[in-house]
Amino acid sequence: MGKLSKEFIAEMKKVMTSEKRILQIESDLYSYSFDASFGTYRPDLVLQPISTEETAGIVRLANRFKTPIYPRGSGTSLSGGPLPVHGGIVLDFSQWDDKLIINAEDLIATVSPGVITAKINEKANEWGLMYPPDPSSAHVSTISGNLAENAGGPRGLKYGVTKDYVIGLEIVTPEGDIMRTGGKTVKNATGYDLTKLIVGSEGTLGIITEATLRLIPKPLSSKTIMVLFDDLVDSGRVISKVLSSGIFPSKMEIMDRASIIAVEAYQPMGLPMDIEAIVLLELDGHPEAIEAEVKKVKGTCLEVGARDIVIAKDDEHARELWKARQLVSPAIVRRKPTKISEDATVPRSQIPEMFRRLKEIENKYQIELVVFGHAGDGNLHPNIITDERDIEEMKRVEKAVEEIFKAAIELGGTLSGEHGIGNMKSPFMEMELGRTGLEMMKRIKQAWDPNNILNPGKIFPEPGQKLVLTNG
Amino acid sequence: MGKLSKEFIAEMKKVMTSEKRILQIESDLYSYSFDASFGTYRPDLVLQPISTEETAGIVRLANRFKTPIYPRGSGTSLSGGPLPVHGGIVLDFSQWDDKLIINAEDLIATVSPGVITAKINEKANEWGLMYPPDPSSAHVSTISGNLAENAGGPRGLKYGVTKDYVIGLEIVTPEGDIMRTGGKTVKNATGYDLTKLIVGSEGTLGIITEATLRLIPKPLSSKTIMVLFDDLVDSGRVISKVLSSGIFPSKMEIMDRASIIAVEAYQPMGLPMDIEAIVLLELDGHPEAIEAEVKKVKGTCLEVGARDIVIAKDDEHARELWKARQLVSPAIVRRKPTKISEDATVPRSQIPEMFRRLKEIENKYQIELVVFGHAGDGNLHPNIITDERDIEEMKRVEKAVEEIFKAAIELGGTLSGEHGIGNMKSPFMEMELGRTGLEMMKRIKQAWDPNNILNPGKIFPEPGQKLVLTNG
Repeated sequence: MGKLSKEFIAEMKKVMTSEKRILQIESDLYSYSFDASFGTYRPDLVLQPISTEETAGIVRLANRFKTPIYPRGSGTSLSGGPLPVHGGIVLDFSQWDDKLIINAEDLIATVSPGVITAKINEKANEWGLMYPPDPSSAHVSTISGNLAENAGGPRGLKYGVTKDYVIGLEIVTPEGDIMRTGGKTVKNATGYDLTKLIVGSEGTLGIITEATLRLIPKPLSSKTIMVLFDDLVDSGRVISKVLSSGIFPSKMEIMDRASIIAVEAYQPMGLPMDIEAIVLLELDGHPEAIEAEVKKVKGTCLEVGARDIVIAKDDEHARELWKARQLVSPAIVRRKPTKISEDATVPRSQIPEMFRRLKEIENKYQIELVVFGHAGDGNLHPNIITDERDIEEMKRVEKAVEEIFKAAIELGGTLSGEHGIGNMKSPFMEMELGRTGLEMMKRIKQAWDPNNILNPGKIFPEPGQKLVLTNG
Repeated sequence: MGKLSKEFIAEMKKVMTSEKRILQIESDLYSYSFDASFGTYRPDLVLQPISTEETAGIVRLANRFKTPIYPRGSGTSLSGGPLPVHGGIVLDFSQWDDKLIINAEDLIATVSPGVITAKINEKANEWGLMYPPDPSSAHVSTISGNLAENAGGPRGLKYGVTKDYVIGLEIVTPEGDIMRTGGKTVKNATGYDLTKLIVGSEGTLGIITEATLRLIPKPLSSKTIMVLFDDLVDSGRVISKVLSSGIFPSKMEIMDRASIIAVEAYQPMGLPMDIEAIVLLELDGHPEAIEAEVKKVKGTCLEVGARDIVIAKDDEHARELWKARQLVSPAIVRRKPTKISEDATVPRSQIPEMFRRLKEIENKYQIELVVFGHAGDGNLHPNIITDERDIEEMKRVEKAVEEIFKAAIELGGTLSGEHGIGNMKSPFMEMELGRTGLEMMKRIKQAWDPNNILNPGKIFPEPGQKLVLTNG
């Protein structure tokens, strides 16, 4: 049972209403020791709460015993969010998914922490409504994981990210008190915005036990356009040109040549291998407006020198075109077993320069780099394809990752657009935020969680901490 | 010179680069003693900083001498935001308006704190872009005042409020350090969202010296529809029905019968005096989509029993229709000299019930109540028309205001949708937030501003504080 005392376990058994949701055997502990990022950290105990009272009871006890708590959804984090880096308890919320209520008149959804994100949108659709945030993991990830990391997705360009759709939360504070933030109204100017402070705080400020989400009317239709470019810089220009022509696409994704080659090797789709980039756009709204917008986008693409433009004939065809983008991730892990997916984000005007710097870094460290992502909002995903058993290569990869972060910040961007900081990017926080920025964040953490029990070892760098991608 | 020591003044003269921006004479101090809410509080000194360095110097000095600082824009606050309730220094940012830069490629604007809000939108329009937040005071208020109070406006329904458009800030902390929050990218998942914590914190957590605002493509056209209702409840039904039919109007405003009567008495526009409500809608987007949406809205209105529907023939006609709504505020102050403008907000399904409760409160306290506002998002503006010299009536008004707040919270709403808390609503904070919610906000304030020098006496209730609308 590791470091937890018998007294602690005995008291915990009083808090949990069923022992089935107390996991202590080694194989269980092992399966909670990793997420979709790096490193393996074994927890001492896993609990699966299914009520606010249980959660508050666990936190109160952990706070009294100063035992670390690591909240976790489905474990799809790419930055180490749920990793129990200091041991202690993993709180698995994936079992708590009983509430998913759509209130169509108020355009809101009320959800339990373990509800799968995609199900919220599916249920909203039944009412002619939409929950816009669409991280790639939406069919696996829980809403509370999305809330903790402020997940994004392709639709972020037009519709914003998770934070933009949260209007109220029920929270268990680090000392085990229960509080509600925000409410059921979209407008709320009553005191500090604790809701938006907690969303994206990666489980370090409070545990989310219920959320009220804002929904919007579902657009009547959508249309997909695939644009092929001989020149990467031209693809960057089309993005700005479309946006300043009064058109606001719902998605605007980019794939570089390495992504295209990887996809064709994995599952041939007939994409030309000699182009430098593909831009995939989705327009949504009223069918008649889309008709007119498609013409305009086509004109803009030809103007900046696109090689070819494919307009989806119907929804089936649109799905086919999007398949190219969706296959990038599975395709690249076929090349080598380890994928380091970054989400350094730059102002959209800096995308061509960011691509240039990425090329430089790739050459300098002799690594394999594939770049794709949400070009419309500057949120690229440089993915390094490697093999974590190759220690020498991993050392080069560590340096390359560090240079990617530096490049993003130098270009006026940020370490993370949508994956969060976790333990992976915390060594670089001061580089972006400066001493004062980091200090003011720390003051909030200390004031709310004096015993540092909620997700310790995340966001804030520990003394001397460096990026380490190897487990040895 | 009131309570400030000679030493303090001497040191302040070293910080300010021009003595012209140090105001000390009685008439100047008087003109900074009120805003658009209640009460008169004389500051001891007024300073007009025009740089980050000056601002930081002032704050460091004030922090050393433990002198309160009250930041102020144009003083249009309806909740007492800039009132120097504990004396000290008013920091007037209205003179610092030198920077208003549109970066069309990145869809952002960078602005100085004293820039008038409407000018940002005007300048964005030149680039085919839009800055959506549109508080009624936009032609007078400064952006930093809007940021401090998280100002809303009619377009909040579709486009959100000020907070939704701020992606980066430069801040002087309560101890006089300079920090940058957020950045130039729309997506940012790097640590706690200090940007959205500071926006709406009413100048209690930091002083905003620069802001980076997100812009969006300007919709190509818009159309206004005025709908007249014999029955208030029907007008509430039309709001939900339109929103769940896949149409997202840019504005959806309501005026009750008292508003209509007041407007007709002030400036006859030919509005029927026997109806119970007017709903004004604006649809925006592509002209062909609007065409189709207008038809749909018209059908929905007739279905729920509207008496009459007027569709604006052109922009000129649209401006005329909106004039009715714009005249409500000037019209009602003609009836009696004092107007108490509230912004209690409820979930939109509760609008009919809120109207019922307001009627009850009006009768119970024998006050004159006019209700209008942003019905689409549940943000009503119940305005009490009174005379502050009538002490007996003001006592009834105080009780009525308290009951309005209670009703809003009971219906799942909030004290403030867009005006903020200031000193006017702070006595009611615990009623909405609970003990823990208020305590967690206080912890942030204490951790950031240990000497409580930034806007003390706001948001947080002082011991035993009650709503007082009379100055004696």
